[in-house]
Amino acid sequence: MNMQGRIEAAIAEALEHGRGAPCPPRLAAALDHAVLPGGARVRPQLCLAVALACGDDRPGLSAAAAAAIEIIHCASLVHDDLPCFDDAEMRRGKPSVHRAFGQPLAVLAGDALIIMAFETLARAGAAEAPDRIAPLVRTLAAATGMPGGICAGQGWESEPSVDLSAYHRAKTGALFVAATRMGAEAAGQDPEPWTELGARIGEAFQVADDLRDALMSAEELGKPAGQDAANGRPNAVAELGVRGAIGKLESILGGAIASIPSCPGEAQLCEIVRRQAERLSPVAFARHMA
Amino acid sequence: MNMQGRIEAAIAEALEHGRGAPCPPRLAAALDHAVLPGGARVRPQLCLAVALACGDDRPGLSAAAAAAIEIIHCASLVHDDLPCFDDAEMRRGKPSVHRAFGQPLAVLAGDALIIMAFETLARAGAAEAPDRIAPLVRTLAAATGMPGGICAGQGWESEPSVDLSAYHRAKTGALFVAATRMGAEAAGQDPEPWTELGARIGEAFQVADDLRDALMSAEELGKPAGQDAANGRPNAVAELGVRGAIGKLESILGGAIASIPSCPGEAQLCEIVRRQAERLSPVAFARHMA
Repeated sequence: MNMQGRIEAAIAEALEHGRGAPCPPRLAAALDHAVLPGGARVRPQLCLAVALACGDDRPGLSAAAAAAIEIIHCASLVHDDLPCFDDAEMRRGKPSVHRAFGQPLAVLAGDALIIMAFETLARAGAAEAPDRIAPLVRTLAAATGMPGGICAGQGWESEPSVDLSAYHRAKTGALFVAATRMGAEAAGQDPEPWTELGARIGEAFQVADDLRDALMSAEELGKPAGQDAANGRPNAVAELGVRGAIGKLESILGGAIASIPSCPGEAQLCEIVRRQAERLSPVAFARHMA
Repeated sequence: MNMQGRIEAAIAEALEHGRGAPCPPRLAAALDHAVLPGGARVRPQLCLAVALACGDDRPGLSAAAAAAIEIIHCASLVHDDLPCFDDAEMRRGKPSVHRAFGQPLAVLAGDALIIMAFETLARAGAAEAPDRIAPLVRTLAAATGMPGGICAGQGWESEPSVDLSAYHRAKTGALFVAATRMGAEAAGQDPEPWTELGARIGEAFQVADDLRDALMSAEELGKPAGQDAANGRPNAVAELGVRGAIGKLESILGGAIASIPSCPGEAQLCEIVRRQAERLSPVAFARHMA
């Protein structure tokens, strides 16, 4: 099975485990709505690519790790879209979960998906390599909880004074770092050499997201545009201008490829990062450089 | 250290890990507000009591399991109190988290506490018994996520047609079952013989909660009273009347004590269940029987 197929199968398996009878059917439908059909699945692809580069000796566990990362990413999107945060009506071109199912089920869907992510790691780990569960759970928790994960990143937006570097590292970077590290951990390898790759791709993703938010229409984005400026959020376009932000994006992606450790799957991994880089620098940006 | 001391120390250690620098200080304060000072800590006491009855050969792990259960219980209270659910102003005699910190930080505090619960299991397990992490994580996830945990229980309240038995089992019973099972799992023992004890105490707790909600004032409860009737929720008092509900409570607690397996710590555990039973049948109920 190809990489995308392995990711979708592992996500489908996790959702299936959450649908046992009896369960509240609308909440089950809200979980599906939040996770399917997927976006680009960037983070799980990165996780699996690193696992493959590290030998991928437990393919069930690496696929589960990739699925866990995507599921908890979807949970964060569901909660970010709530009226008390972005109040977003649309996500991935369809109604956000609270628009489709109401706020109570959106809060519960996010909670249930967070729990499902950790359960998925434990279930696959128990079958494939029990000694790898602790590092995987701890890496995922560090990327999502307090003090430095997604929740912390979002939490900085409620502070009167913001640590900007901690904010970006937590809100976007942390889950990319988890993706590369968990790829290595699922394959039983040392995650340290993979931290820089995740951090650089995360930084590139943040800059590209700032560019998209500033330059693209709501229709192109599948969600409201101009949210950073509207909410006065710190972003690379406000800081460096459009051309400056594009230059920064290219430099970060070059550094990401350079940081890939020497390993059997190195060429394939470089190719994946290059493809992500192209996705991150779409035609819309190029128009502004012309 | 006594049982209560071990529980509070393990909870404090988990919170301390969530407070690394830099982190958003208001979110860190919201986590403390949600978890400290504690309520009766009924679920973690039950967990530790079963661990002790099972030999408690990894006391760091059993204390972490107890803390994880309480932390995720507190997370569920924070989210239950949100305006889109109970819109509760008070909890444990002080403002609810969203009243004290605003809705965004209340959503994030709940999320961060869920993550912290799983991280706490993985950290203690890595140090004490890596092979016990998978069962502990899976039991906690089953008690809190979909299809049969707290989220599912809360989710039934958004369904047009409710499976009442699944609703009660998921909303209240599941975390008590997790408490007894995780006590056994943390001590490396088979959790099966401990399931009935958790289920019966959970059922007793639900009936006692229904009685308290119907009979006690908001001041005595430290939260709004009469919520079940006001929200038309199914409850034992509506179904059986006050006397009938009290009779049911006593019968369930008798069965709980009878269900305790033969084990070295049996007498101590019976004593703990008896103490909980007294707490569950306060003077306020007795007045209505006179």
